[in-house]
Amino acid sequence: MSTSLGRYPSKVSLFEVGARDGLQNERAVTTADKLILIDQLGMAGLKRIEAGSFVSPKWVPQMADSADIFKQLNKRSGVVYSALTPNLKGLELALDAGADEVAIFGAASQSFSQRNINCSIEESIERFIPVMEAAKAKNIAVRGYVSCVLGCPYEGDIAVSEVARVAELLYKMGCYEVSLGDTIGVGTPVNARKMVEAVAEKVPVGKLALHFHDTYGQALANILACLETGVRVIDSSVAGLGGCPYAKGASGNLATEDLVYMLHGLGIETGVDLPRLIEAGNTISQALGRKNGSKVALALTE
Amino acid sequence: MSTSLGRYPSKVSLFEVGARDGLQNERAVTTADKLILIDQLGMAGLKRIEAGSFVSPKWVPQMADSADIFKQLNKRSGVVYSALTPNLKGLELALDAGADEVAIFGAASQSFSQRNINCSIEESIERFIPVMEAAKAKNIAVRGYVSCVLGCPYEGDIAVSEVARVAELLYKMGCYEVSLGDTIGVGTPVNARKMVEAVAEKVPVGKLALHFHDTYGQALANILACLETGVRVIDSSVAGLGGCPYAKGASGNLATEDLVYMLHGLGIETGVDLPRLIEAGNTISQALGRKNGSKVALALTE
Repeated sequence: MSTSLGRYPSKVSLFEVGARDGLQNERAVTTADKLILIDQLGMAGLKRIEAGSFVSPKWVPQMADSADIFKQLNKRSGVVYSALTPNLKGLELALDAGADEVAIFGAASQSFSQRNINCSIEESIERFIPVMEAAKAKNIAVRGYVSCVLGCPYEGDIAVSEVARVAELLYKMGCYEVSLGDTIGVGTPVNARKMVEAVAEKVPVGKLALHFHDTYGQALANILACLETGVRVIDSSVAGLGGCPYAKGASGNLATEDLVYMLHGLGIETGVDLPRLIEAGNTISQALGRKNGSKVALALTE
Repeated sequence: MSTSLGRYPSKVSLFEVGARDGLQNERAVTTADKLILIDQLGMAGLKRIEAGSFVSPKWVPQMADSADIFKQLNKRSGVVYSALTPNLKGLELALDAGADEVAIFGAASQSFSQRNINCSIEESIERFIPVMEAAKAKNIAVRGYVSCVLGCPYEGDIAVSEVARVAELLYKMGCYEVSLGDTIGVGTPVNARKMVEAVAEKVPVGKLALHFHDTYGQALANILACLETGVRVIDSSVAGLGGCPYAKGASGNLATEDLVYMLHGLGIETGVDLPRLIEAGNTISQALGRKNGSKVALALTE
């Protein structure tokens, strides 16, 4: 095993989104299967697990059981279980159910914001103010997501200044970390690095995370390039759970297994046990009746 | 579109292996379908196309029609059509059929050499001497492949000094270019870059090519890291043709479409028309009744 070069960090923190971002784009799966997944992810060494979403079940029926998930999950010591909460009602339900932290989301694209949540970027940020205040009052950490940071399905290219502006808004309103989402996976390494560098002028790089989709197969190369900027947190999804809603049959989230394989190869610690992670991914893939979306898992599974 | 940074080249030469390396691991396909593929690859702007292999049909029945392929293919001006020729008989058949250049192959792993071609690395190089001499006599360029440069399915890790030694042997015996194959796709970026740097101490970097498999999803990240060494030639396979013979269901060759997408995103010229390339990959995937192995193709095909 090689040791990491100077340009890469010695450790990276992984934020696992498979059980939420991943499963909300998959067909329905039982609460029991979700609980097994979340437990296996913790057993594999993941310390930050997004476990559900408190949005209206009318919009995302796959997440209707999020309260049950949080109430029933086997809480492991040292693991933070996170919930997506679009509004005050969602926040209250999440906290009642026992979520450790919550997340809110903005877009770097006006068109995407309008089509996805029916309001402008500014209005969406406004709406999160009461969520943020209520969370602060209860001492609950809030994470922020920015979508479309490297392109928008409706607008195409997005100016890095706009990404930096929205990331700064979320950071200044109190998000402890801002995750930069290449929602449609169109970025390439130099563009990705330039975007992160631009955002890092407004938000400390230590407060940024990468959330890159693998729709065009570029996610690992983009992450490799961005690790040079000083970013140390990466979002990914076991088994690549979560297809791309904008291109039928295409991939969405980057598979955590493939990311861990690269990071370990670079000599970067993640705290993750790869064989156990592969087991978690194979179990949920079987439950979903889908081929495992991780190339590493396919290569290492007999 | 971004312009390339100083650390990356302005142009890269692609060597397309789909019609040979790709199809020899797929189930049989008709001669007519292969001819369509080769023609579509040329139409997409690829200038170096491996079109067949003159090995015994007993070992690789999928390549039994290679003479017909070379005789019937629509030769495009400026395109070099290459053939794999393991011995003198193969060379003669390839030249009779009209191949523009030929290729020979060695392994960086003794165990792989023994199991794959039943002889030691040294014996395999010896056997290529008459092929090389006959090719030189006819003024035919010979390319060299080295397999297992980042790991062997039987031995595991391979010393970079051994890769450099075998690459140098092939170069010194007269190969105009040596292609470094991560046959099982196990490499990661820093290891890959160190290996290329070690080989470049023995063979001029301008005479090296990368032939990285995507079995673990690492190929693009590895290529990104290796482009910094000065290497300017990359092998890939349209639609990711060619599964991994060492892990059932796993990927093998890197999809040319995904590579072209990254290179163009980096501002690197390839001369390839991506939509036409995607069409070529979709056509052969349909003929094979398999899902296109390129993520870019899946994302961009309606």
